[in-house]
Amino acid sequence: AKNTNVRVSLPAVCFVWQIAMIVLFGVFIRYNPESDAHWVEHMRTENISSDIENDFYYRYPSFQDVHVMIFVGFGFLMTFLKRYSFGGVGFNFLIASFGLQWALLMQGWFHFLDHSTGKIYIGVENLINADFCCAGSLIAYGALLGKVSPVQLMVVTLFGVTLFAVEEYIILHLLHCRDAGGSMVIHAFGGYYGLAISWVLYRPNLHLSKRLNGSVYHSDVFAMIGTLFLWMFWPSFNSAITDHGDGQHRAAINTYLALASTVLTTVAISSMSQKKGKLDMVHIQNATLAGGVAMGTAAEFMISPYGSLIVGFCTGIISTFGYLFVTPFLENKLKLQDTCGVHNLHAVPGMLGGFIGAIVAAAASEEVYSREGLIDVFDFEGKHANRTVGTQGGYQAAGTCVAIAFGLVGGAIVGFILKFPIWGDPADDNCYDDEVYWEVRLLIELNESFCLNCIHF
Amino acid sequence: AKNTNVRVSLPAVCFVWQIAMIVLFGVFIRYNPESDAHWVEHMRTENISSDIENDFYYRYPSFQDVHVMIFVGFGFLMTFLKRYSFGGVGFNFLIASFGLQWALLMQGWFHFLDHSTGKIYIGVENLINADFCCAGSLIAYGALLGKVSPVQLMVVTLFGVTLFAVEEYIILHLLHCRDAGGSMVIHAFGGYYGLAISWVLYRPNLHLSKRLNGSVYHSDVFAMIGTLFLWMFWPSFNSAITDHGDGQHRAAINTYLALASTVLTTVAISSMSQKKGKLDMVHIQNATLAGGVAMGTAAEFMISPYGSLIVGFCTGIISTFGYLFVTPFLENKLKLQDTCGVHNLHAVPGMLGGFIGAIVAAAASEEVYSREGLIDVFDFEGKHANRTVGTQGGYQAAGTCVAIAFGLVGGAIVGFILKFPIWGDPADDNCYDDEVYWEVRLLIELNESFCLNCIHF
Amino acid sequence: AKNTNVRVSLPAVCFVWQIAMIVLFGVFIRYNPESDAHWVEHMRTENISSDIENDFYYRYPSFQDVHVMIFVGFGFLMTFLKRYSFGGVGFNFLIASFGLQWALLMQGWFHFLDHSTGKIYIGVENLINADFCCAGSLIAYGALLGKVSPVQLMVVTLFGVTLFAVEEYIILHLLHCRDAGGSMVIHAFGGYYGLAISWVLYRPNLHLSKRLNGSVYHSDVFAMIGTLFLWMFWPSFNSAITDHGDGQHRAAINTYLALASTVLTTVAISSMSQKKGKLDMVHIQNATLAGGVAMGTAAEFMISPYGSLIVGFCTGIISTFGYLFVTPFLENKLKLQDTCGVHNLHAVPGMLGGFIGAIVAAAASEEVYSREGLIDVFDFEGKHANRTVGTQGGYQAAGTCVAIAFGLVGGAIVGFILKFPIWGDPADDNCYDDEVYWEVRLLIELNESFCLNCIHF
Repeated sequence: AKNTNVRVSLPAVCFVWQIAMIVLFGVFIRYNPESDAHWVEHMRTENISSDIENDFYYRYPSFQDVHVMIFVGFGFLMTFLKRYSFGGVGFNFLIASFGLQWALLMQGWFHFLDHSTGKIYIGVENLINADFCCAGSLIAYGALLGKVSPVQLMVVTLFGVTLFAVEEYIILHLLHCRDAGGSMVIHAFGGYYGLAISWVLYRPNLHLSKRLNGSVYHSDVFAMIGTLFLWMFWPSFNSAITDHGDGQHRAAINTYLALASTVLTTVAISSMSQKKGKLDMVHIQNATLAGGVAMGTAAEFMISPYGSLIVGFCTGIISTFGYLFVTPFLENKLKLQDTCGVHNLHAVPGMLGGFIGAIVAAAASEEVYSREGLIDVFDFEGKHANRTVGTQGGYQAAGTCVAIAFGLVGGAIVGFILKFPIWGDPADDNCYDDEVYWEVRLLIELNESFCLNCIHF
Repeated sequence: AKNTNVRVSLPAVCFVWQIAMIVLFGVFIRYNPESDAHWVEHMRTENISSDIENDFYYRYPSFQDVHVMIFVGFGFLMTFLKRYSFGGVGFNFLIASFGLQWALLMQGWFHFLDHSTGKIYIGVENLINADFCCAGSLIAYGALLGKVSPVQLMVVTLFGVTLFAVEEYIILHLLHCRDAGGSMVIHAFGGYYGLAISWVLYRPNLHLSKRLNGSVYHSDVFAMIGTLFLWMFWPSFNSAITDHGDGQHRAAINTYLALASTVLTTVAISSMSQKKGKLDMVHIQNATLAGGVAMGTAAEFMISPYGSLIVGFCTGIISTFGYLFVTPFLENKLKLQDTCGVHNLHAVPGMLGGFIGAIVAAAASEEVYSREGLIDVFDFEGKHANRTVGTQGGYQAAGTCVAIAFGLVGGAIVGFILKFPIWGDPADDNCYDDEVYWEVRLLIELNESFCLNCIHF
Repeated sequence: AKNTNVRVSLPAVCFVWQIAMIVLFGVFIRYNPESDAHWVEHMRTENISSDIENDFYYRYPSFQDVHVMIFVGFGFLMTFLKRYSFGGVGFNFLIASFGLQWALLMQGWFHFLDHSTGKIYIGVENLINADFCCAGSLIAYGALLGKVSPVQLMVVTLFGVTLFAVEEYIILHLLHCRDAGGSMVIHAFGGYYGLAISWVLYRPNLHLSKRLNGSVYHSDVFAMIGTLFLWMFWPSFNSAITDHGDGQHRAAINTYLALASTVLTTVAISSMSQKKGKLDMVHIQNATLAGGVAMGTAAEFMISPYGSLIVGFCTGIISTFGYLFVTPFLENKLKLQDTCGVHNLHAVPGMLGGFIGAIVAAAASEEVYSREGLIDVFDFEGKHANRTVGTQGGYQAAGTCVAIAFGLVGGAIVGFILKFPIWGDPADDNCYDDEVYWEVRLLIELNESFCLNCIHF
């Protein structure tokens, strides 16, 4: 039996890393002009007419929706296992809380560092970006659910956030791609990152824990809390950091439509897949979200409402087929155990979203966007002022490949790090079980009349 | 035994209708000036000074609250049955996702069609209206919960949204009523629509499923998630599409107050109704919401804070009495089986809300509203510029009757359509059971020590 | 056995108090200029350029987040007991609904009364304050959970809101303290108020109900819903009534950071406290929130991002130690039974938050805040124009002591009132049991195959 005692390693990691955060924040992180007490002076200098022009009022409602997706959405989506609900929602809570701090630093160094002062100035947009950055690692957790220790998850997050910041820098800054909702930088990266880790950590004897790798009635209802909060707030996710005005407005509409369409095709395929036409909760909980993932890049573009519906239509089908056929194939043939099916919900729809974005970008025209609109949406300014939409489309496609490559290579390396026998991961017959890392009290309250009924039955 | 196999019909309905949506969206739906990339040009043309004036920032937070009510609120409210939680939250998810697309088209054709271009231009207000329109059909689902197939629910939604758009056109445009939170157009219509369908689909032998028509401990707690999200966000529901500024502000305050008052009278009547003064979860889950329904029309008026409290006070009492006495009466005497008691939560409070709105409108005065305020609140402009408040009150009352008539007649017709033996509805001894349409795995995890305890008990 | 029949007392309290609310609202409460139909005139008079300047758009999103914290956050946090989930979420619902009405009046009389007209004019900020005021009594409920009747809880709320309004008046107006998120006025007051009541109501034979004073697996997952909604929306709580612009922006950032830091130290201490390093759900559900409490006063100050992390770091440790050592000590040595451990989550972190606020205020400088910023943040205007930051720090510390004193003395008095044998509280062997005040149906659905499996086991 493996040693799953994390009494030294878990507190050590938490304390040391948190102290490091404090020190690094002390050196680098400051309030930006919109959150600093000098705001009134700043308003005067910049000729800003009203407090309502503070970015806080443009983005805070979306930020809170994103925050709910990260903690309740991802957290409860992973409570579906019959005996791993504590681990699902609890470890998600832990790693997102660490990840968002590290993300503020990493993203700050790459994107927001003021080289004259050496400081990172933060505001609400940074908080949204930090939550996004965590999402990559939380997606990876979906592939590993039940098979790793909390210490391993902290390592996954440390490297996940680091890799994220680098690939994001390459994709958004060097390649100058647009990816507001992160089909590429969040979902494709996070999905393949988790799959690569899971592939390296393959457990040939995982069938010994098979009895616990499934849901019970109430755990499936808990998971629906996660699904619905993700589904409802996805329009905020894809519009949270798009341009003020029409950018946020359009991204929300497109995502809303794509997701609605996905639900219908998911239900259709789920029902067709079973002899009696019964629906499967696994599909309803997961594949219904694929439309939001696939709209992550194109949501801010003029993809048009029916275009959004088509994206949702196709990804619902593809994702449900993934759960039906690809996940078993990956497990049996490619030795890849993917607990939540992130391959079908994040990796593939994210990759598709990247290419959809490339196509929609390449098809953009002044007629549809207006001259100014085109410049605003694709940020054709400065040294990118002369880029054509066709070139932009090419770069978008290249960005998707970069995200996947970072996920696969980074995940493989992190997987090997996690193979060292020091992290306290559970034995093969002990996976998917909260008893390993949590004090679990009664599963159910015994009750006289219940037992008597049972015995007299 | 009936044939409940929906393996052909459910996918067929989902695919065909979703493809129809895509085609119709392609022909009709476009972005409006506030969500189109031409926004910067539009700002210049219309002399709009800042992105913050985009309607997105006025309404998006309310939209998201309404969205949560539709999917988590209505969805989880219907998880209270011990073995129909998947169907409660899952079918709600399906039909709302379809309904909102169809609503964008139907409401678009009636209210937002630009006759010069033949297009419907959408923005965030249309999304809110589409969610509202779905609510009518979701309310109807409450009366049918556990007794119909998902295919029937899709039919209920198709006709429900269609009827909604027509009655809404008559009430809001032809009669020029005000009904921001939809006491009339949403709740009275939806409630009577569901009741009429349920009456036509009366099942004399439903007692055969009696064992499943009830809650267990945890399913009642799940239902409270739905109740609370409905209750908390109802101020957003009633203020989501009211006038900018004081209109939204006042509607939120009035609804907040009415709902608080309802809780106290619901608790009072619930406690009085039981020998030992114990409270009944059915009342707490449902009747506490009646104040929000009844404020749907009057919330934007100057009903005054104590007026709101009085509305909440009375509707809490009426709704709880409904659950105690009217629902059993309807079932036993009128052959009307109403699973969730939508009669008490939507139909009657909605009707009352319509008449309360009529009275408050008729009592309006320039003194209380100011001249401009009166014109703004009741939209006394154009050909309605000379309408008096008394006339307005009369039209409001007439509007309520139109909503009820549409619900009853439309519901009866749809009910007859649903009686054809082709829809895969469950047999009388098989209602309220998720096993009919869902793959249900374990209800509870067996566990050695639990069983041994039980046997040794 | 005690008489727990509340069939007369509970409806009487609800009806009489609700009618009193209606009468008092009729006499005192009116819409303020921003929610009144005269708004258009008001805009012209005050030279307000746009509807978006209505305070509704600055504060409504935060208000809704706070509303969720009060009803879902506090409510579900108290569902953790295996058989008291109805009481946890249901009584919370009842007393918050009453409390917010009474709070609008009490806070109105003290802070918002227009002496020329004798009216209280309300808007969205009053709704937020009313929700805050309820929070004090809901915190107190945490210490009493399972041991009191709903009638007693109504009394706790009546006096709790009254005391709150008085101490708030002293602290914010007379002492001119700043306390946006209420470390002092909400948490320290509410925590000590509940503890004092619980101390007076000490039950020497509470061990007779020991079998029910604990969680089961699913009830712990329900409680996580409460935890997460509190945790996620705490940035809105602490920023809801701070100054427009940088004030709200900074308060949200600081709270977000402090809470993230708290999670890591809570996990660390929880893991260290158990032989095998397993985590305890009690800590994760509660101590992770202590950072938000402790930032309640200082969140709007220029505490700087790393300062927020330090506050979270320390309070996570202190709170978890409280659950491990102080709660048992209080129960065994001081005869103080604190069901939810509000001592560790509210009383101590609230007190610390008050003193942290005092220190940060005393350390403020024009260099960091700018001259105008300093005046804005600390409201050094009118008769307080010459107050120094050092003096302000002293007053902040004094305010903390006032809050604690009000809690302790007020709680002791209310405790004695609740000792009268007329309130229907449960017997010592009957605590923590929903059967006393709720009609509880089946705990779990019996099912043939389950029983047979069990018997054949």
